[in-house]
Amino acid sequence: MFIQTIKTPGLAHLSYIVGSQGTAVVIDPRRDVDIYVDIANKNECRISHIFETHRNEDLISGAPLLAKLCGAQVLHGPHADAEITYAVTVHQDDQVEVGNLRLEVVETPGHTKDSISILLFDNDFAEGAAGIFTGDTLFVGDVGRTDFYPLESAHVAGLLYDSLQKIKACAPAAIIYPAHGAGSVCGDGMADREFSTVAHEVKNNPLLKIDDKQEFIQQKMAEQHYLPPYFSEMERLNSQGVNTSVQPKVLTPLPHNQLNKKYQQAYLLIDVRSIESYLGAHIAHSFSLPLDMITAYAGWLFKSDDKIVIIADDQHMASQAALQFSRIGYDHCEYYFSANLAEVSAKGGDFVSVSPIPASEVKSLVEQDWNLLDVRKLTEYKQAHIAASKHIFLGHLAAQLSKLNPQDKYITMCASGMRATVAAGYLQANGFDNVKVFMGSMGAWQAQDYPVEKA
Amino acid sequence: MFIQTIKTPGLAHLSYIVGSQGTAVVIDPRRDVDIYVDIANKNECRISHIFETHRNEDLISGAPLLAKLCGAQVLHGPHADAEITYAVTVHQDDQVEVGNLRLEVVETPGHTKDSISILLFDNDFAEGAAGIFTGDTLFVGDVGRTDFYPLESAHVAGLLYDSLQKIKACAPAAIIYPAHGAGSVCGDGMADREFSTVAHEVKNNPLLKIDDKQEFIQQKMAEQHYLPPYFSEMERLNSQGVNTSVQPKVLTPLPHNQLNKKYQQAYLLIDVRSIESYLGAHIAHSFSLPLDMITAYAGWLFKSDDKIVIIADDQHMASQAALQFSRIGYDHCEYYFSANLAEVSAKGGDFVSVSPIPASEVKSLVEQDWNLLDVRKLTEYKQAHIAASKHIFLGHLAAQLSKLNPQDKYITMCASGMRATVAAGYLQANGFDNVKVFMGSMGAWQAQDYPVEKA
Amino acid sequence: MFIQTIKTPGLAHLSYIVGSQGTAVVIDPRRDVDIYVDIANKNECRISHIFETHRNEDLISGAPLLAKLCGAQVLHGPHADAEITYAVTVHQDDQVEVGNLRLEVVETPGHTKDSISILLFDNDFAEGAAGIFTGDTLFVGDVGRTDFYPLESAHVAGLLYDSLQKIKACAPAAIIYPAHGAGSVCGDGMADREFSTVAHEVKNNPLLKIDDKQEFIQQKMAEQHYLPPYFSEMERLNSQGVNTSVQPKVLTPLPHNQLNKKYQQAYLLIDVRSIESYLGAHIAHSFSLPLDMITAYAGWLFKSDDKIVIIADDQHMASQAALQFSRIGYDHCEYYFSANLAEVSAKGGDFVSVSPIPASEVKSLVEQDWNLLDVRKLTEYKQAHIAASKHIFLGHLAAQLSKLNPQDKYITMCASGMRATVAAGYLQANGFDNVKVFMGSMGAWQAQDYPVEKA
Amino acid sequence: MFIQTIKTPGLAHLSYIVGSQGTAVVIDPRRDVDIYVDIANKNECRISHIFETHRNEDLISGAPLLAKLCGAQVLHGPHADAEITYAVTVHQDDQVEVGNLRLEVVETPGHTKDSISILLFDNDFAEGAAGIFTGDTLFVGDVGRTDFYPLESAHVAGLLYDSLQKIKACAPAAIIYPAHGAGSVCGDGMADREFSTVAHEVKNNPLLKIDDKQEFIQQKMAEQHYLPPYFSEMERLNSQGVNTSVQPKVLTPLPHNQLNKKYQQAYLLIDVRSIESYLGAHIAHSFSLPLDMITAYAGWLFKSDDKIVIIADDQHMASQAALQFSRIGYDHCEYYFSANLAEVSAKGGDFVSVSPIPASEVKSLVEQDWNLLDVRKLTEYKQAHIAASKHIFLGHLAAQLSKLNPQDKYITMCASGMRATVAAGYLQANGFDNVKVFMGSMGAWQAQDYPVEKA
Repeated sequence: MFIQTIKTPGLAHLSYIVGSQGTAVVIDPRRDVDIYVDIANKNECRISHIFETHRNEDLISGAPLLAKLCGAQVLHGPHADAEITYAVTVHQDDQVEVGNLRLEVVETPGHTKDSISILLFDNDFAEGAAGIFTGDTLFVGDVGRTDFYPLESAHVAGLLYDSLQKIKACAPAAIIYPAHGAGSVCGDGMADREFSTVAHEVKNNPLLKIDDKQEFIQQKMAEQHYLPPYFSEMERLNSQGVNTSVQPKVLTPLPHNQLNKKYQQAYLLIDVRSIESYLGAHIAHSFSLPLDMITAYAGWLFKSDDKIVIIADDQHMASQAALQFSRIGYDHCEYYFSANLAEVSAKGGDFVSVSPIPASEVKSLVEQDWNLLDVRKLTEYKQAHIAASKHIFLGHLAAQLSKLNPQDKYITMCASGMRATVAAGYLQANGFDNVKVFMGSMGAWQAQDYPVEKA
Repeated sequence: MFIQTIKTPGLAHLSYIVGSQGTAVVIDPRRDVDIYVDIANKNECRISHIFETHRNEDLISGAPLLAKLCGAQVLHGPHADAEITYAVTVHQDDQVEVGNLRLEVVETPGHTKDSISILLFDNDFAEGAAGIFTGDTLFVGDVGRTDFYPLESAHVAGLLYDSLQKIKACAPAAIIYPAHGAGSVCGDGMADREFSTVAHEVKNNPLLKIDDKQEFIQQKMAEQHYLPPYFSEMERLNSQGVNTSVQPKVLTPLPHNQLNKKYQQAYLLIDVRSIESYLGAHIAHSFSLPLDMITAYAGWLFKSDDKIVIIADDQHMASQAALQFSRIGYDHCEYYFSANLAEVSAKGGDFVSVSPIPASEVKSLVEQDWNLLDVRKLTEYKQAHIAASKHIFLGHLAAQLSKLNPQDKYITMCASGMRATVAAGYLQANGFDNVKVFMGSMGAWQAQDYPVEKA
Repeated sequence: MFIQTIKTPGLAHLSYIVGSQGTAVVIDPRRDVDIYVDIANKNECRISHIFETHRNEDLISGAPLLAKLCGAQVLHGPHADAEITYAVTVHQDDQVEVGNLRLEVVETPGHTKDSISILLFDNDFAEGAAGIFTGDTLFVGDVGRTDFYPLESAHVAGLLYDSLQKIKACAPAAIIYPAHGAGSVCGDGMADREFSTVAHEVKNNPLLKIDDKQEFIQQKMAEQHYLPPYFSEMERLNSQGVNTSVQPKVLTPLPHNQLNKKYQQAYLLIDVRSIESYLGAHIAHSFSLPLDMITAYAGWLFKSDDKIVIIADDQHMASQAALQFSRIGYDHCEYYFSANLAEVSAKGGDFVSVSPIPASEVKSLVEQDWNLLDVRKLTEYKQAHIAASKHIFLGHLAAQLSKLNPQDKYITMCASGMRATVAAGYLQANGFDNVKVFMGSMGAWQAQDYPVEKA
Repeated sequence: MFIQTIKTPGLAHLSYIVGSQGTAVVIDPRRDVDIYVDIANKNECRISHIFETHRNEDLISGAPLLAKLCGAQVLHGPHADAEITYAVTVHQDDQVEVGNLRLEVVETPGHTKDSISILLFDNDFAEGAAGIFTGDTLFVGDVGRTDFYPLESAHVAGLLYDSLQKIKACAPAAIIYPAHGAGSVCGDGMADREFSTVAHEVKNNPLLKIDDKQEFIQQKMAEQHYLPPYFSEMERLNSQGVNTSVQPKVLTPLPHNQLNKKYQQAYLLIDVRSIESYLGAHIAHSFSLPLDMITAYAGWLFKSDDKIVIIADDQHMASQAALQFSRIGYDHCEYYFSANLAEVSAKGGDFVSVSPIPASEVKSLVEQDWNLLDVRKLTEYKQAHIAASKHIFLGHLAAQLSKLNPQDKYITMCASGMRATVAAGYLQANGFDNVKVFMGSMGAWQAQDYPVEKA
């Protein structure tokens, strides 16, 4: 009887495979499903069932593909917003036997209407569930967001409250296995810790501690979450089921003398290297989007049908980037370009840089004619920001670009300089010639004890 | 904040690494310690401390070696039977901060007098421990054995009872992280399941459910455990600390024409292939001990200073065998011999076989002049055995060999045929020429509805 | 400028990838093509062209699939027996530039009419070819077989003679890169050595040393080669091009209690473990075909549309077996069954054994009523055999089974016991109840100095 | 009979393992020897002998360590400059049998006095050597340098000439297996191609084509090679034999808030990231030395007993760097610091940048008060350089630093910008505040058709 957690960084997505006596079940598989088959094989198990705790909106579900590959059945909760064409609907108390294990459905709507949790019983030690897969209903330190139904926000928050009480009642001694960890766009307050129990959450989870339903509803309705535009596409795709595997298999290398010709017009050039590399030297008209920020920001800044050239340190990094894109349905990474700017330059190619500047220089420049653009989330901005700064969330930069003037001078900032560099690259690629990055950003500013404002 | 379980099959040993913000702690490392360093590196952590929950008697501790390698400090509980020369003694409530984690010592004597458990707190969600490393005090489905102090058996069983109450009280909501899983020689009743919580154990663990101390003590004293002779050597070595790494690095291949010469006298020939292979054909005078039975039976059948030739399907299998031996302090695996018996024979070498026989044939032969030797544990034998059978536990075969007559005919049996083959090989290598293996053994016998006895 | 040899054991197939300055070319890819893409990626190259030195008859070509995957062009020689639908035809002196490399076609018909060799020039050191890909025209120690056109055997042998002279003339200083090594069914006399030069072959290769065309033709016509029935299927498939990847992706594990039911009728049970394991214990009605003999004998003993259950030590071994089958177009390995016969028996399942016997016992039994069946190649048999033996080549056993009587007693033999075990398993699965294997076979017989005959 | 080439990038070092029938021989092993053991194991061979073609001066030999590990014998040529304490001396025509292979010594002094080559014969095809290990005597496209005995330079060049004639005579049909490939400091003219034969070299190798001994000697004496200061240390260590394995096993991560305290004084901070990253942002006082330039330039710029903090993108990159250092005897890489400059800055740490500039800006700045410093090799500089530039070879920068003025402004350049960045970092770390890097350097300059000078 084994259980294994499969973490997908970037998305902070957690999926699970649990097996006993030759059979295994997968919960919430991601699109690149080989890993589940490998684990099943290693444990000499056949994957018989795949549970989806809800219709995912932040990533492509691997359930249809994995089901096809293994001859497994996909199980999905009731009340989905659109028909899940590839799955069988399960309801409260439905059970699946897996060797000496028993999985049992608990309907836990709220985050979505089709959300379920799944109790995990050991037939040999069956007094109460040993574990519970909580999907996006209950996280370590947080609970699911409830902003997906704007017209019924109080209603679904109330549903979530009831669902949480249900979990507390039916699995008080269980380990929780949620669908996301810290860093996910599906919640703000998740713990960095990867393990917890229902009992521990009851004592520590700020939202689970709330005993009053109305107070819970009000607190949930007061939350502010961003809704990336690609979510609706994920919802559409995950209803009908994506059963093609991750694309592309091969990222064709593009020689150094070819990039400047036709590709710059037909393709997005996306530089996935570290921000330090991008600041140092990058290809003209290329965007910065470091590897581990792809799943968080590609859905805001680019379109899923854009054709892409990945600029990376090496093929491995480029493949990893293509995989990240593919996990959220961006399947058109076609070429890899090796970011050896010294070589590119030595062959006559152009390069561009962006200057990173320290707090002291920012302080001095904003007193001159430079604009300071803070691209953090609104919640971060409200907690503390620099008086002279203007706020546009990085995710909104594409939509609000017309509010900025390419002739003006901009210093971008965020919490550390990461998102600021992505923003600076976005501006520069869109014709802003005077852009600098505030390195260290809010952290560096506060380390100098410079004044901040709150709102 | 990550936690990772390192499973060591054979020993069914569980060790852990837990880290946060650049620092990590290891609990109960095994001798081959590279895996901890690899995980720490991957998580960009430095291993600062190593906890030993008790002085291990069934495996070589990797704590001294890992400490030397990483500059870490080893922490060990008080009241050890012998001074732990390489470790700092910690006491109840002693704490170690690891990034945003806090580890806190709970003295839990019983299994050994120096047993401790370690509470795991998340400073951000600190209301109660989120986890507890329970060593050999509390397992999933079982508790630690208490037969190591024969003169004070009631006393230490009572200590264990108190320790368990302590755990229930101080970590009711915690996940448990024990030092062993199912298959370990450190307990009989461990669950096959790899995960549990204190709360779930309280409801399901037969021994944790006992509320009466005297009843608990009586039940523990009634348990029967085997004590392999190598345990005392492990205790000695683990007190002084083994800080040489796993030996050998290189297992020299031995050509097919060399084995029959000098090696058969100076070396033990141990065939670690599947029992089916051994039955089919093996080198004369070689012992059978399949790869995953090494840690359980080598300590009974062979001496730790024996020089060994490993006979295996390939070098990889041989290296795995040498590693298994090394984990329990058998460091003299020097040669690897490829068990291609067709090749060996084609070059003029000898081979031997053992006939596996089905239940029907066993039934018929024991009515003639064949002896049926059951090598299971006494507890298994008592539950059900064949009337005509004689019992000698496999682990006692070496010591009780003189009770058997090499001129007699023996059919060996166990539960399935695995241990029976090891026993048959042991007899054959010791000059018993008429040996057969009851394939399927007790399982096959009962599948035929043949009569059994209980005792 | 790199070159890498990809060896495929079993088929003894050699393929190559050679690259320079961001571009690479593959020669004679096998069906599982990921390895070429991986090497290209690692060397930051795009695969632009794929050469086929001839239409392969012993394995599925990976050229169509790799071409589709990489957008590469497949190049094939002229005069193919059937149109190669997926390839461009190249002729003598046609060239392909690959970075600083130049590849140039040499038409070398003989083995097949469409055979080409490919010269490899380094543009910076261009005085003569540095290497030559010789396909099945010239091997290390041997030359290609010329028995594929029975009606024109002298003609094609003569073509090969001329082709070899051509190679000697145009690439005297080159390293040779042939399509097969020792163990291939495409030749008998190949050296075990993996590297050679044209100049070294001129001095050492028995057939290349022949200066007289007629003598060469006569010697080639006197050669005797076996032609496995699956060759014609390979030819058909490789003309039209197989562009599905290796099947299956997942080999479903079959629980121990299921095999005896429906599967034994609808499926071939093929046991790919070592012969020692099979001899020791195997599932009734299962065939023996050890992993590394699959590509050599599956094409003789089984049909490519048979549905197969692979019996193996573990999933990894089963997957390797399925891969071997897939390389020769056997795509119906559907299940994996773990060959733990002790477990199977303990659950009431049946097992069968085959007794291996030494030379002395063979000598004695053939003087009684046992038949001795030698399954080696005819060439081996002619060199030396036991007087009492009857010869049927293992590959012909299926076709000539009616010549044997299931009521009779058979001892199978070969050179060592490997093929003898495959033969014994084949007989046993076909209802022969009295079968033994001569372990060591001809080697063991001769080691005893027992008498042999020649013919 | 297998042969495998082990390439060590950076050093462009080639070593070999060749085996037959259970025994293998290694030629010129590098210090990290696990790879040879792994290959031997995989091929079921025991390493019986290790040949050193000469006493290496550019890397630590792994021969003593590998010999100890495997119980193998090290063989070394006669006339070594210092006694090779761990090796047996072999002479012309000495032979070693390895399965079906025979290795035979050819004394080929010149590069060093103890240089030998080793002929490789296949006993089954023994007419002439099939291969020859040529050490630093004969490369693909070049021959060994002969500047190690300044007082006898004509003499040793003559020795090399004679040795080359010997190779041509005794192995005309052989494949050559040299000890270095393109990029090595042991030669300038090596081909990028990794494979060749004696016959092909005779026709293409500029130095092997020379038929006149005096002409050869003159040409060799006219060559200019750099002699890194660490060579003498390598010679000393390789005479006595280094038999400790690569250090360190563990590179301790250094938290972001610790680097600025004590470490900057006691340690060298070496940043091994890409030059683009370094240009973008780096830790104050850190040196730039990208991963693949370590073995070429560490020996010039740093001392082997310096204690080092490796600054890298991640632990894997840091470990790779430590390995590179260790291969040339730099064993004091103690810490790893993650180069996330955004994080460092956000915690209040400092960062520094270097501006990369294009050709047009260089042209303009050198007409003002900026100095242009060309750090290429003298041979490169002589072929073409910018009139305004001053030349100091990068390797000499440490020794000639006093010739430059920290108050002056410097633009560094090389062929592309790589070495220029290393030089710029070296200047900046030594207190030069006004440093820029000419990105694209000579390549970019010439792509603009700007004027150059020769000689």
